[in-house]
Amino acid sequence: MNERQPVRRPGGRSSRVGAQVHQAVTDLIGERGYGNFTVGDIAARAGVADSSIYRRWGTLESLLADVALTRLNARSPMPDTGTLAGDLRTYAAQVAREITGPDGPAVLHLAVALSGNGPQGLRAGDELRAERMRQLQSMLDRARDRGEDAPDALGVLDHILAPMYIRVLFGMGPLTPDYIDALVDRLL
Amino acid sequence: MNERQPVRRPGGRSSRVGAQVHQAVTDLIGERGYGNFTVGDIAARAGVADSSIYRRWGTLESLLADVALTRLNARSPMPDTGTLAGDLRTYAAQVAREITGPDGPAVLHLAVALSGNGPQGLRAGDELRAERMRQLQSMLDRARDRGEDAPDALGVLDHILAPMYIRVLFGMGPLTPDYIDALVDRLL
Repeated sequence: MNERQPVRRPGGRSSRVGAQVHQAVTDLIGERGYGNFTVGDIAARAGVADSSIYRRWGTLESLLADVALTRLNARSPMPDTGTLAGDLRTYAAQVAREITGPDGPAVLHLAVALSGNGPQGLRAGDELRAERMRQLQSMLDRARDRGEDAPDALGVLDHILAPMYIRVLFGMGPLTPDYIDALVDRLL
Repeated sequence: MNERQPVRRPGGRSSRVGAQVHQAVTDLIGERGYGNFTVGDIAARAGVADSSIYRRWGTLESLLADVALTRLNARSPMPDTGTLAGDLRTYAAQVAREITGPDGPAVLHLAVALSGNGPQGLRAGDELRAERMRQLQSMLDRARDRGEDAPDALGVLDHILAPMYIRVLFGMGPLTPDYIDALVDRLL
């Protein structure tokens, strides 16, 4: 669709439509849950034409994957505090804030639902994971360059991200700062 | 519904209907995913009347919760090997086998989807978690009674179950025996 929209200014109409559509998806995910709304519902909520959504995202699934990716990745810059413990604590606290925030649990449920939804969904999940692992890897590489002992990115996934994800997915109470710091300390 | 079915013999008609309905739900979850079938679809697949399902389970949601609970809990007796390391390794391997088996990922996705689906779904998730935590607690209590140092049940959830759940939910490859044993060793 880029051929048809040669000028794509940040802050321009295209970016405004993108933000409106993302917000409409997030609202509908929160209100109705995955699987219970259509492209038509999103378009009506966002105040845009169905055709704008199909032109830009192609399918409902790829729009949903785009929303989940955007929300769960890179909302905040990766921390660079000078120590691995500091970086991991800050990073874990950012992730906790994102997944427990207003639409956080709904977006996390969306990401999981997409992964369970055939090859296209799995691909979206792969992208999400790959992007997150790349960000983490650069943080861990910096620590190794400083001479620190660093776990691998999958260790961070297994012992910091997975417990937080599972607790939010199963609605198991808040992620307190003490809890988050304990996850980091145990891994290191 | 117990008043209306006073005799409930294991292996009798009621148990056969239960097994047929559970299998029909598992099949439909695998084929269509959560949210994409009705009580009528389940009844047709199981070869029973819609009314039998409503009489026994009340709602689609509580039938789904029953299926998820039955599948994710207590499929195998909790191990009692004489050491905590042995018990946890055996238990983790059982869970891994269950969630990576033929319908495993679909049932795990169902459990997560139910938890994201309002108060009724959260209650089903709570039951599921409570039952699993009770089983674990008795294993950990036995270890403490033997004088072993044991983590708490939430530690097992965070560092053994959560990583396996997240890897299966995001379709991240097999759970190898080495991987599972490493999760247990790291926790202990």
